[in-house]
Amino acid sequence: MPRLITLTTDFGTRDAFVGIMKGVILRLNPDAILVDITHDIAPQNIEQAAYVLASAVPYFPSRTIHLVVVDPGVGSTRRAIAAQVGDTFFVAPDNGVLSSVLRPSSSVTVVHLTNRAYFLPRVSTTFHGRDIFAPVAAHLSLGIPLAALGTPIDDWVQLPQTRATRQGDIITGRVVYIDRFGNALTNIGEELLHGLERARLVVRVGAQTLRGIHTTYADVSPGEVLALVSSTFHVEIAVREGNAAQTLGIRVGDEVRIESAIC
Amino acid sequence: MPRLITLTTDFGTRDAFVGIMKGVILRLNPDAILVDITHDIAPQNIEQAAYVLASAVPYFPSRTIHLVVVDPGVGSTRRAIAAQVGDTFFVAPDNGVLSSVLRPSSSVTVVHLTNRAYFLPRVSTTFHGRDIFAPVAAHLSLGIPLAALGTPIDDWVQLPQTRATRQGDIITGRVVYIDRFGNALTNIGEELLHGLERARLVVRVGAQTLRGIHTTYADVSPGEVLALVSSTFHVEIAVREGNAAQTLGIRVGDEVRIESAIC
Amino acid sequence: MPRLITLTTDFGTRDAFVGIMKGVILRLNPDAILVDITHDIAPQNIEQAAYVLASAVPYFPSRTIHLVVVDPGVGSTRRAIAAQVGDTFFVAPDNGVLSSVLRPSSSVTVVHLTNRAYFLPRVSTTFHGRDIFAPVAAHLSLGIPLAALGTPIDDWVQLPQTRATRQGDIITGRVVYIDRFGNALTNIGEELLHGLERARLVVRVGAQTLRGIHTTYADVSPGEVLALVSSTFHVEIAVREGNAAQTLGIRVGDEVRIESAIC
Repeated sequence: MPRLITLTTDFGTRDAFVGIMKGVILRLNPDAILVDITHDIAPQNIEQAAYVLASAVPYFPSRTIHLVVVDPGVGSTRRAIAAQVGDTFFVAPDNGVLSSVLRPSSSVTVVHLTNRAYFLPRVSTTFHGRDIFAPVAAHLSLGIPLAALGTPIDDWVQLPQTRATRQGDIITGRVVYIDRFGNALTNIGEELLHGLERARLVVRVGAQTLRGIHTTYADVSPGEVLALVSSTFHVEIAVREGNAAQTLGIRVGDEVRIESAIC
Repeated sequence: MPRLITLTTDFGTRDAFVGIMKGVILRLNPDAILVDITHDIAPQNIEQAAYVLASAVPYFPSRTIHLVVVDPGVGSTRRAIAAQVGDTFFVAPDNGVLSSVLRPSSSVTVVHLTNRAYFLPRVSTTFHGRDIFAPVAAHLSLGIPLAALGTPIDDWVQLPQTRATRQGDIITGRVVYIDRFGNALTNIGEELLHGLERARLVVRVGAQTLRGIHTTYADVSPGEVLALVSSTFHVEIAVREGNAAQTLGIRVGDEVRIESAIC
Repeated sequence: MPRLITLTTDFGTRDAFVGIMKGVILRLNPDAILVDITHDIAPQNIEQAAYVLASAVPYFPSRTIHLVVVDPGVGSTRRAIAAQVGDTFFVAPDNGVLSSVLRPSSSVTVVHLTNRAYFLPRVSTTFHGRDIFAPVAAHLSLGIPLAALGTPIDDWVQLPQTRATRQGDIITGRVVYIDRFGNALTNIGEELLHGLERARLVVRVGAQTLRGIHTTYADVSPGEVLALVSSTFHVEIAVREGNAAQTLGIRVGDEVRIESAIC
């Protein structure tokens, strides 16, 4: 029986929203184990939530239920969905927030949450985290099968993926996330570097040119800028013991180019 | 046996205060289940804590123990109290923070915490969350009856309630809370709108006049201001995918008037 | 069997880092109980983490495992360590973050974490919290003995301790921590005040002179500055219901002098 439910929201931690969702879950399943991924997704930032969720999912036990509520369309006609991918479960609004974890494959099942028997009796128009998503996650944790929750669909919303590309020795990608330390994560996976000599590469972002792709922060002195392979195994731009995004003015969406140095 | 203890404080999450309270509880009852409501109540803001607590309590399981530590009078002669309302328990300083959940009724029992056997052996003058409230909550979760903790009282502190009023078709209330999204919650309950045509109402707050009381954010376009019925079933002033409090300069305490449009 | 694992990091709560560490732990030990001390240590601030950890440890149950990840040297040659002090366990980078809890004594055992069997299979160079510290803590919670995790060492890193001193009736110390309320905690333990008349003492910090060492905030009026004995039983400088650090411009490291008033 799945018992572990994670929560990812843009609710912040100042209000009672998250506590209320946990109360709803624990009232239905007192044995549920609740783990916060984050509640500090920027308000209504679906792309950020999709990124954060995808980075966390691989590290959780099988049969974990991931509850994601970043929901600018709450109260509109956007659907509420639950999904199973392999032995991992998801409950979320159908707005693309599951884009990074739901890719069409034979092992993906998605249902539109239409069975109100698994909602709270009174459903508000503005807080489906409490009224729909939390009780559905709790019921999943009690062993209710996905099929009982609603109607299967295959047209769930997928955000456009901006994939990094490599042409010859030139790699082009984008900054997709900036973490709390100001490290800028790109969508350039380590595998795109295959066959290139990392020390001779040049990384360009904005007006900045960085030489080499390093192994770890400690390869440079405190305060120095570097490109390296991140803990998610993508190219990252960082300042050792500093804040690269602030120092270099990097933002999500900025283009990043990697090429071999001519010398 | 109650096992679930919630925590609501103004301690923030930067210091060890909250972790220490949890350590104290788990040392006394290793099976306690701890859920944070919030630790980001504005320092010493008793009204805000009372509001947040009241919004969360109805969603928790029966026999939950709610621990609230917003305590500007710590070390003074203010009393520490525990209370039972129906099958829900509370532990808090007697400063009005339980005002919204403790209303005199036959099912309310309140005790002044006088039995030091349930405190930590050494009680500081500045951190009763650790030394008094956490251990008392832990003992409650172990089944110690309220009566063992102290002396019954009936003169606990109640904050003055500012109630919304309706005279004919004119409703007057106040902003009582601003949430993380900048939504302004009022004390005007949905029941006060009974018999009025919502689309024809006008909501005034500061210099702003809003037309109609909507059902959900999605009734307007992103960036537009609207009044709607909140998830707590009160009138709320919001900006879809924006921050109403910042945009309109709304503050807690501001008057809100609702009347029928003359047209 | 130890089941309780606390987490103290500088990871913040905006990213998935903390959730990922919890996923790693719960995958290895689904019965682990996780308690956050804080994730808001200032980035790379080892001294702050050492202070916060030491203030929390005494309040946790025996056999608790404290996991601390403030790790500016991640990926360098700094060692990863685990320690046992009495019946309390610690897992952390060897950078001094355990300075306040690891003092050489017969009951301290420290091992350099060299046994990769207890790490994740793939160890990144930038996120040892996920790849080394979390899985090692999980294995400790499953009963794996410290000796199995690596090689005993006795040259772990200790930060220099700045101790408060007393010469005659003059006490000299420093501000070592500023909490969320702006209270300034010093390293002047209550025991240094022994034999002095507290009401007649004068406390100097920066240009400020405070008269008397009080018992609690409530000894003065709201908005007034006072020195008092803190909940950690050290001298603290505070403003009742205000922020002493901001009001007086106090910073960590500032000298604090206490002497008897001449009058």
